Amino acid sequence: VRVGELGEFALIDRLTGPLERQGPGVPVGVGDDAAVLEGPGEELLLVTVDAQVETVHFLREAISPEQLGRRALAVNLSDLSAMGGRGVAALVSLVLPADAEVAWLERLYQGLREEASCWGVTIVGGNVTRAPQHAVIDVCALGRVGRDELLLRSGARPGDLVLVTGHLGEAAAGLRLLQRPELASPAREALLARLLTPMPRLREAAVIARSRRATAMIDLSDGLSSDLLHLCEASGVGVRLWTERLPVSEAVYEVARQSGEAALELALAGGEDYELCLTAPPKVAEALAKSVQGETGTPVTIVGEILPAAAGRTLVLPGDEEVALEARGWEHFGEPRR
Amino acid sequence: VRVGELGEFALIDRLTGPLERQGPGVPVGVGDDAAVLEGPGEELLLVTVDAQVETVHFLREAISPEQLGRRALAVNLSDLSAMGGRGVAALVSLVLPADAEVAWLERLYQGLREEASCWGVTIVGGNVTRAPQHAVIDVCALGRVGRDELLLRSGARPGDLVLVTGHLGEAAAGLRLLQRPELASPAREALLARLLTPMPRLREAAVIARSRRATAMIDLSDGLSSDLLHLCEASGVGVRLWTERLPVSEAVYEVARQSGEAALELALAGGEDYELCLTAPPKVAEALAKSVQGETGTPVTIVGEILPAAAGRTLVLPGDEEVALEARGWEHFGEPRR
Repeated sequence: VRVGELGEFALIDRLTGPLERQGPGVPVGVGDDAAVLEGPGEELLLVTVDAQVETVHFLREAISPEQLGRRALAVNLSDLSAMGGRGVAALVSLVLPADAEVAWLERLYQGLREEASCWGVTIVGGNVTRAPQHAVIDVCALGRVGRDELLLRSGARPGDLVLVTGHLGEAAAGLRLLQRPELASPAREALLARLLTPMPRLREAAVIARSRRATAMIDLSDGLSSDLLHLCEASGVGVRLWTERLPVSEAVYEVARQSGEAALELALAGGEDYELCLTAPPKVAEALAKSVQGETGTPVTIVGEILPAAAGRTLVLPGDEEVALEARGWEHFGEPRR
Repeated sequence: VRVGELGEFALIDRLTGPLERQGPGVPVGVGDDAAVLEGPGEELLLVTVDAQVETVHFLREAISPEQLGRRALAVNLSDLSAMGGRGVAALVSLVLPADAEVAWLERLYQGLREEASCWGVTIVGGNVTRAPQHAVIDVCALGRVGRDELLLRSGARPGDLVLVTGHLGEAAAGLRLLQRPELASPAREALLARLLTPMPRLREAAVIARSRRATAMIDLSDGLSSDLLHLCEASGVGVRLWTERLPVSEAVYEVARQSGEAALELALAGGEDYELCLTAPPKVAEALAKSVQGETGTPVTIVGEILPAAAGRTLVLPGDEEVALEARGWEHFGEPRR
């Protein structure tokens, strides 16, 4: 069996299945957005890795090296934010063909430094190695979270509401604009920025974590449908997602109209929005949403409800038809499942 | 300018030059074997990354997946040992072509788990992503060291003696045996094991760190000549290396005789031995060497002396001729400089 036949998530299950979920000095091991280790004082340490691979995640002609540097770090900081944490340090592992331009790499590092500087992160090390062909920028980010503020994927309980930050589908709409030059959008620059230089929701995560009202959280890297299912799986719960409530901007509808896709599809399956999806008890969800918006300016929308596992995981379509919620996001190795 | 023209170390200097050497919660940033962050209680946290790239570091036909998994983690643990630390956790970032065999990956993970288990390390996470062609196994290792036991490259002082653990050139001799099937050695299996599954010197590092007698330390990944120059550079000192004292085993002499190379060359420039090179004041060096050997069985040899920077960095050849010590180890992107 080859990994292309098995698919990314089945491969991860197969490889990490035999691993211990905890260990000495490791309160939370493999399986969440970041691992959790004992940290200094009253804090826990968070650590995560994510790679940007040439031709898979980026094309040199479609993203500037500064943008790529920012992005390579931002997607890792997004994982830290999903745990309720903040960034502290990062290591940068470069795998480079010998014909890579030094000037291009200096600009990549410039982007890494800018993004790090925005969030008080220090770039503390890394590695450089030769590649046969394509470049890989692999970043390891370390962060911290208060011991009482840690948020896992596994804390959602039936009755909780499901919330998302920001707007969904904008990165996917930006990708369509890049892929199909005939598409036009007055929001072109903003949509491209959402795709190329995602903003990790660290400020929003800090408000959410401090409130101690959220029960579970995950970041939206693969797409809401896929990532929400991961959260439900980890929590052992069902969910009902109300598609009419999904925060989808006019700009996404406009691109979807031109590309002949459903805007809903971009929002559910587009991936790379790097928004946060969280759960909170119904009594506090509204107030939590308001306080995040008040402190950060980022809207937070209630988009569904957590159900007992036996109730299944469903999507309520416009017109009230209820269908099974299926993972339709990006998957490495898998055929696109849309 | 392309990275192939600039060379690995010049590239690293160029990229990391603008980085802060310290930051909030980061006592020691870029530039040593591992970065140092604030850790739990009286300990500091260590973190390092190192990648194994197909065709550059390994050929699938020359190393079993179990060996590769062990090696990918061991070389990172070696970096932790160079700081006087021990391993706690590791993350595994895989970049894989879609035709990679799942069974091969399961065996790779088996090796990773075995190596982790040997050293009390928990594999806490990672990432899987698609590659256009060649596999990359990028490992991030986290460890800890007592605040008073941290060893940096920068602590060597004129008058200190230079010590190395184990024997040098054995991994290079193993590589020769792989490269040239006509070479024979009664120690073939042992030399191949030194190359394919290096033993991180964590036990030796623990004895050295606890003694508080060493002043600086580095691990030997590129080759003694290259790595010792890094240590001297970081410490701002000169050095005199006595080649006649270098611990070179009969097995290495035997392979060198057959391959037509100088055994000294394999010992100085071969790289991948993953031994430790340390410095200690002359009054305590001998006792330190004995206590490491007594507690771990690993010999420790005094091979040189640290000098003021103005005295230069030299190599005393057999017959007492003194020549400049030049970096002759493995360098990514660079032409082999031997």
